[in-house]
Amino acid sequence: MNNEEKISRQPFPNSTKVYIDGEIHPIKVAMREITLSDTKLSKGGVEKNPAVTVYDTSGPYTDPNIEIDVRKGLPRIREQWIKDRGDVEELTEITSNYGKERLNDEKLNDLRFEYLHQPMRAKKGANVSQLYYAKQGIITPEMEYIAIRENQRIEQLNEQTKAMQCQHGGNSFGANTPKSKITPEFVRSEVARGRAIIPNNINHPESEPMIVGRNFLVKINANIGNSAVTSSIEEEVEKAVWACRWGADTIMDLSTGKNIHETREWIIRNSPVPIGTVPIYQALEKVNGIAEDLTWEVFRDTLIEQAEQGVSYFTIHAGVLLRYIHLTANRVTGIVSRGGSIMAKWCLFHHKENFLYTHFEEICEIMKQYDVAFSLGDGLRPGSIADANDAAQFAELETLGELTKVAWKHDVQVFIEGPGHVPMHMIKENMDKQLEHCDEAPFYTLGPLTTDIAPGYDHITSAIGAAMIGWYGCAMLCYVTPKEHLGLPNKKDVKDGVITYKIAAHAADLAKGHPGSQYRDNALSKARFEFRWEDQFNLSLDPDTAREFHDETLPADGAKVAHFCSMCGPKFCSMKISQEIRDVAEAEKGMQEKSEEFVEMGKEIYS
Amino acid sequence: MNNEEKISRQPFPNSTKVYIDGEIHPIKVAMREITLSDTKLSKGGVEKNPAVTVYDTSGPYTDPNIEIDVRKGLPRIREQWIKDRGDVEELTEITSNYGKERLNDEKLNDLRFEYLHQPMRAKKGANVSQLYYAKQGIITPEMEYIAIRENQRIEQLNEQTKAMQCQHGGNSFGANTPKSKITPEFVRSEVARGRAIIPNNINHPESEPMIVGRNFLVKINANIGNSAVTSSIEEEVEKAVWACRWGADTIMDLSTGKNIHETREWIIRNSPVPIGTVPIYQALEKVNGIAEDLTWEVFRDTLIEQAEQGVSYFTIHAGVLLRYIHLTANRVTGIVSRGGSIMAKWCLFHHKENFLYTHFEEICEIMKQYDVAFSLGDGLRPGSIADANDAAQFAELETLGELTKVAWKHDVQVFIEGPGHVPMHMIKENMDKQLEHCDEAPFYTLGPLTTDIAPGYDHITSAIGAAMIGWYGCAMLCYVTPKEHLGLPNKKDVKDGVITYKIAAHAADLAKGHPGSQYRDNALSKARFEFRWEDQFNLSLDPDTAREFHDETLPADGAKVAHFCSMCGPKFCSMKISQEIRDVAEAEKGMQEKSEEFVEMGKEIYS
Repeated sequence: MNNEEKISRQPFPNSTKVYIDGEIHPIKVAMREITLSDTKLSKGGVEKNPAVTVYDTSGPYTDPNIEIDVRKGLPRIREQWIKDRGDVEELTEITSNYGKERLNDEKLNDLRFEYLHQPMRAKKGANVSQLYYAKQGIITPEMEYIAIRENQRIEQLNEQTKAMQCQHGGNSFGANTPKSKITPEFVRSEVARGRAIIPNNINHPESEPMIVGRNFLVKINANIGNSAVTSSIEEEVEKAVWACRWGADTIMDLSTGKNIHETREWIIRNSPVPIGTVPIYQALEKVNGIAEDLTWEVFRDTLIEQAEQGVSYFTIHAGVLLRYIHLTANRVTGIVSRGGSIMAKWCLFHHKENFLYTHFEEICEIMKQYDVAFSLGDGLRPGSIADANDAAQFAELETLGELTKVAWKHDVQVFIEGPGHVPMHMIKENMDKQLEHCDEAPFYTLGPLTTDIAPGYDHITSAIGAAMIGWYGCAMLCYVTPKEHLGLPNKKDVKDGVITYKIAAHAADLAKGHPGSQYRDNALSKARFEFRWEDQFNLSLDPDTAREFHDETLPADGAKVAHFCSMCGPKFCSMKISQEIRDVAEAEKGMQEKSEEFVEMGKEIYS
Repeated sequence: MNNEEKISRQPFPNSTKVYIDGEIHPIKVAMREITLSDTKLSKGGVEKNPAVTVYDTSGPYTDPNIEIDVRKGLPRIREQWIKDRGDVEELTEITSNYGKERLNDEKLNDLRFEYLHQPMRAKKGANVSQLYYAKQGIITPEMEYIAIRENQRIEQLNEQTKAMQCQHGGNSFGANTPKSKITPEFVRSEVARGRAIIPNNINHPESEPMIVGRNFLVKINANIGNSAVTSSIEEEVEKAVWACRWGADTIMDLSTGKNIHETREWIIRNSPVPIGTVPIYQALEKVNGIAEDLTWEVFRDTLIEQAEQGVSYFTIHAGVLLRYIHLTANRVTGIVSRGGSIMAKWCLFHHKENFLYTHFEEICEIMKQYDVAFSLGDGLRPGSIADANDAAQFAELETLGELTKVAWKHDVQVFIEGPGHVPMHMIKENMDKQLEHCDEAPFYTLGPLTTDIAPGYDHITSAIGAAMIGWYGCAMLCYVTPKEHLGLPNKKDVKDGVITYKIAAHAADLAKGHPGSQYRDNALSKARFEFRWEDQFNLSLDPDTAREFHDETLPADGAKVAHFCSMCGPKFCSMKISQEIRDVAEAEKGMQEKSEEFVEMGKEIYS
């Protein structure tokens, strides 16, 4: 078994993993530092370009100093933090019946993760959620980690910006230059207010803390799921690693099939980002796919099973109420959420209220023992432009708002899922209503797709909506791949989806003026203008593709230091002419200064 | 020479070219009609789905009844309309000196288009622009063609919508159902007001009339240009045909090199859409690439040369004034427009005002003799997020506004080019200022790119901005391909760029509520919900890719009629469950009606 072959772990070009120390807690915050080449000045000599530090979701895989062994899992960086709080106990055995069954099934020995840890759970009566700590005024190591991580070494950025300003003789970096630092206390206060959540189950201590909230960087989620054709454990792990490599902030494991319990264990043990799931999918499998056979007991056991494995957020469709279902009957595309349709079918069959709704407080009791966050599912989200912002969607949203307050009463973290398919002019209404009904709990949307007519390109139809809703205040964007509506994404589709959503999220960060977010744009544009091709590639979201596209037209190594490119050739190059203009302007300025000096001198002489 | 091999001309799947007759003029407006399969009703039987007619830019190439011979060029559908107006003369020889030189050069015989026509020009003192006619109250055949084309058979759409509403028992198609028809008189009035332009040089009678204005469908432009490696004539023509096939409304020919005169002739003679150029590029070639050697005379001869070939709009950077150049000196990326930097260099070298500005009225005199429209170039557009909406850009925009009024004085059609690189929160300001300064002349933007950090994906970074500015009122979007900033686009890149921009334009049309624009979304979503896979593919912007992606996971033919798909499988299918819910709801409704009947009966009996 050669990990190297199956798990992507090359560092990014010209990049080093750096670790920033905490000030309150003994933590080391991982980031990626991109080294740049010097600028050759037209007047001769060179000027240094300071390194650029960027937010890094790739985890230990891009640190060549860390040994990776998927059988053992990643280093458990948060384990000591969790234990130090003194409010958890290590269980002697797992709690869920299903989990026990799987553990005792000898046929699964080959499939099972080898170095299983005993699960942790809150001590009786304790609440281990970050929301609980935040309300107590406690700044956890997780909160400090996040503050440092979100800042992306803002002090350094401010210095770099100053240097760039000097070089160009003025502040030309727009309104979004680095301003203020995000403090650990700010993180705490946002979590306490419910405006941000930190998804990090105590049973996933391998995960690097991250935050979802509209006063932080916009995050993205990538969905993965095992395929019908059984793939090896390394392939399953690689799917998650691959998505994180390109920028996924969280992963939702939507696997189905008979070995999902074991697959999930492998994924969590090797994932540097929080994992989310939709527990009803597994519960449905336990009742052989027959929705009406679902029970609270089966669902409850599934929640505990997954919570003890380390899932950090559960999509729960508790807002699909019996009385809302008829609101979807005249839609063009009915109910398109899998979880939503399962619950609708259950409600109709039994003519009873959704058991996720009626048992909601019991669910809260489970969640707070592991710090699992609610991702309140939008089971009635629109599946087409025609159905956007309709009565069914907004009715459910109001119920999600009601449930948010119940969860908060239990100090359980919550965010809210959103659509789906929404034309551009209806996106803001969606965001505004969410903020209003759910009292500013973070919003987490799928896209939304802004048109239905481009299957095969729905990463793009949805990136438009995603960028906009991110700007309007959506905290996390669930990616859509080019295969949406058509088939299962392959590795290329996952990467295309992740990069496309990084673009949407970053465009939103720029528009929101997140401190420091424009810095990478500035550094890349400066590199482009100065024909530092390698720096341009290395600063981009996808250095491999940028380099490959360049080399398709101009493959020679010399072309990467040439002061022109394939688009216009050496004669026509506007960048080159523009630099000449700058030189002329500087020369003229020099002359003007000289002439002003003379005038001053003249004044002195003749005064 | 086998055209079939080199020119894409297969009709789209399940699609027929249809021609709608005019009512005022004897014109035939080409459209594409997509035939759909029947819906199988759950209660048994089938329901017909009416055909969907869509706007079609592909020209005669997708009509198997029309013979295509690139040596002869396309049918000259507008020739008689132009001659019937009685205000043009056929010249006995071409006017431009350079054109004559090329014509008399025997070495070029093999390269030259074989069936050259004599150019047409306005009779002395006449103005042949659509703006002139519009102001006279004349509804030209071009205007009627456009009205019919923009409506996409709206009567039929209204019927279809009605049918769909019946089927689903209510109006669930949102606010954007077909409302009112665009009339020829409305087209005329918008052109007369300067709020829309019809780019259609009298020397390009092969082109199908189209309109650029914010009260019409948002249009897209694709740039093509010959590559350094000399390609065959068919390959050059194919580039344009390929872009039109996927939806380009206009083509800009940005070719450089020694045979651009001949290449342009081939492209125009075979293009069903208007062609735009940047004449300064060719003028610069005529002075061996030395910007300071450019003269008004060389430029003037180039304008006439290209006007008599049939170019429908010229990008002219007349707003790059001497006094604005220093405003770019402190930018991160200086001047990135090729034309802008050429003119800036000329101005600085001679320390004189831009000759395109000082000779602007003479240019107008030329334009109106052929009906060439101005695309007033934004030579100082920002080349990075840092430079967005700065003093240089807005100073030039004011000058473009001033020039718009000069052009209108001459009854010459005008639109205004715009950026470039703009973060989301600054896009609306750009649009608003353009409308204000340029008195609502149509805006035509490149993207804008909403972040700089994703070279290799700039079709996406820019589609976000393009969709938004289209919604805000931008009339035409210049596409950006994945190769932007990196290399020359190949055929795949051109298609990716065009489809991405069709998405942006259509998303904008939906948001603006263009009559009938949502119809295709509704038809596709209905097909999706009913598992009519082939209809879903055929209604999409790119049927080939949609089908290919589907077949990657489920290749069997049976899968295309299956009532589930690869994403969830048969057990989990939310669409299937949702249809069951609809059936239950209908059954319940049936029962309720029955019980109401009984109540009514009871009332009668006991009253």
